[in-house]
Amino acid sequence: MSSESAFIDTLRALATHPAARDLIDDAAVLEMGEGALVLTHDMIVEGVHYLPGDPPEDVAWKLVAVNLSDLAAKGARPIGVLLGFTLGDEAWDQAFAAGLGTALTAFGIPLLGGDTVSAPTRVLGLTALGRTDGPAPSRAGATPGDLLWVSGAIGDAGAGLKALQAGEDAPALIERYRTPRPRLEAGERLAPLVRAMMDVSDGLLIDASRMAAASQCGVEIELDAVPRSPHFPGTAIEAATAGDDYELLFALRPDDAAAVLALGDEIGLPFSRIGRFVAGAGLTLTEDGASVTLPDSLGYEHRRP
Amino acid sequence: MSSESAFIDTLRALATHPAARDLIDDAAVLEMGEGALVLTHDMIVEGVHYLPGDPPEDVAWKLVAVNLSDLAAKGARPIGVLLGFTLGDEAWDQAFAAGLGTALTAFGIPLLGGDTVSAPTRVLGLTALGRTDGPAPSRAGATPGDLLWVSGAIGDAGAGLKALQAGEDAPALIERYRTPRPRLEAGERLAPLVRAMMDVSDGLLIDASRMAAASQCGVEIELDAVPRSPHFPGTAIEAATAGDDYELLFALRPDDAAAVLALGDEIGLPFSRIGRFVAGAGLTLTEDGASVTLPDSLGYEHRRP
Repeated sequence: MSSESAFIDTLRALATHPAARDLIDDAAVLEMGEGALVLTHDMIVEGVHYLPGDPPEDVAWKLVAVNLSDLAAKGARPIGVLLGFTLGDEAWDQAFAAGLGTALTAFGIPLLGGDTVSAPTRVLGLTALGRTDGPAPSRAGATPGDLLWVSGAIGDAGAGLKALQAGEDAPALIERYRTPRPRLEAGERLAPLVRAMMDVSDGLLIDASRMAAASQCGVEIELDAVPRSPHFPGTAIEAATAGDDYELLFALRPDDAAAVLALGDEIGLPFSRIGRFVAGAGLTLTEDGASVTLPDSLGYEHRRP
Repeated sequence: MSSESAFIDTLRALATHPAARDLIDDAAVLEMGEGALVLTHDMIVEGVHYLPGDPPEDVAWKLVAVNLSDLAAKGARPIGVLLGFTLGDEAWDQAFAAGLGTALTAFGIPLLGGDTVSAPTRVLGLTALGRTDGPAPSRAGATPGDLLWVSGAIGDAGAGLKALQAGEDAPALIERYRTPRPRLEAGERLAPLVRAMMDVSDGLLIDASRMAAASQCGVEIELDAVPRSPHFPGTAIEAATAGDDYELLFALRPDDAAAVLALGDEIGLPFSRIGRFVAGAGLTLTEDGASVTLPDSLGYEHRRP
């Protein structure tokens, strides 16, 4: 067991409230009347979640977007955010603040508070607060027979990161890496339909495995069904392990496929069926009907609990 | 204007929601029916808010306590917390997790969620969520003629920090520095009585100045009235600029003094009248009736917004 796993197991024992969802979900969900209050806190660190050369405006966007993506996965409308900021280079700080303004304006939410401290390294944290009108889907609700779906296209953000690391010019991919779009409208509309939902942040395969494990079943993914954009340069397995997609991954009863396809047409975001949940445990892959060996890495494993 | 002030001014323009209280308050306050939801996020950094040699269990206590102190200042009962943790030395991490358990158990609240990341420096963040039954006092409600009160004793924590830095053995003072006690019961009981309230974190003088500025009036403090414990080794002005007290500072109508003194007797926490609010602006000091020159530093200025 890794040091991080041991630490998180110790924390899990402190997560005694049902709202904590045993720390396996993207966010805390406090039931309030018919709906729920949803709270998430994600941090980003230079060199781990963004590159030293990324524009500070985009870093601010990403910090907001990754947190709102967790709200989207619970079907929540964002109410506001609290910022945890470490001061550093003054010009960078001011550009970050301007970018934060751009992001909050784009999503129509206010800054509610937070803290600013001096620290030797930049560690940026954001708490996002949201609200649902009905029950918030967990990642633990899938059952054998449910189908696995995903929104949008997978892999572009990871390819954007690779392009930046290689010094290549690939604006469409880099834009997906630096300024992800949380699927807020989709999440809110999908929430009443889905059996389980989460966002894809660490990689499609690892995140699907986590949904299956939380739901105490297995999952089969058809790699050839994983949706990729015309810009994506790699293989299906590269897309499915790349991470940083911030798309929605959800389990659906087969009968609800038509409703989801109609919703996709209405809001202009494609939804793709990429696999199914089965009795048992673990992940299996196929491509064009043939079994595929699991890659060594299913995605990022040590970035978040 | 410092770099931090410029940054915070930029942020203030994004705090467009009334719940943000223009970022001048200890916490965000979202009205919900008769009461309010109160949210705060404070960070602590090694070498800034705690010493490298402080036991990790105590660092965890402090992280919880400083956030709950902000809830106390708004009269809120804590509901739970979200942790933002940077992994480092494994033994330190595990001791921190154990200390977090001790603190959360002591305050009777659960861990609700959060994030764990790898980072080169430890920057620890906590978001605390609380709830009030009635209006949450702001720090901007004092008016000329109100009296300034404070809970407990001032200066011990700062003296504890000095003792640690000097390698001196002063357990009573060091305990106050490392494991502050947020005044949750006092805050909840005081909230309906006070005109303004905040906690004393950066130093009594600087925090009283901030309350006066937020309330658009001046404040006079009688140094000889500043309550000190039998352990405190320094002068009144040293106590009043030391910081880390996590006591409650509040403005009260003169007629409410008897109610506050009775409350102090009931809950076993002394409350002391230490000054008054006046028309105008700024801070003035007296000692034994004579005017006293303001010290160069009123407390910590660059630790938090």
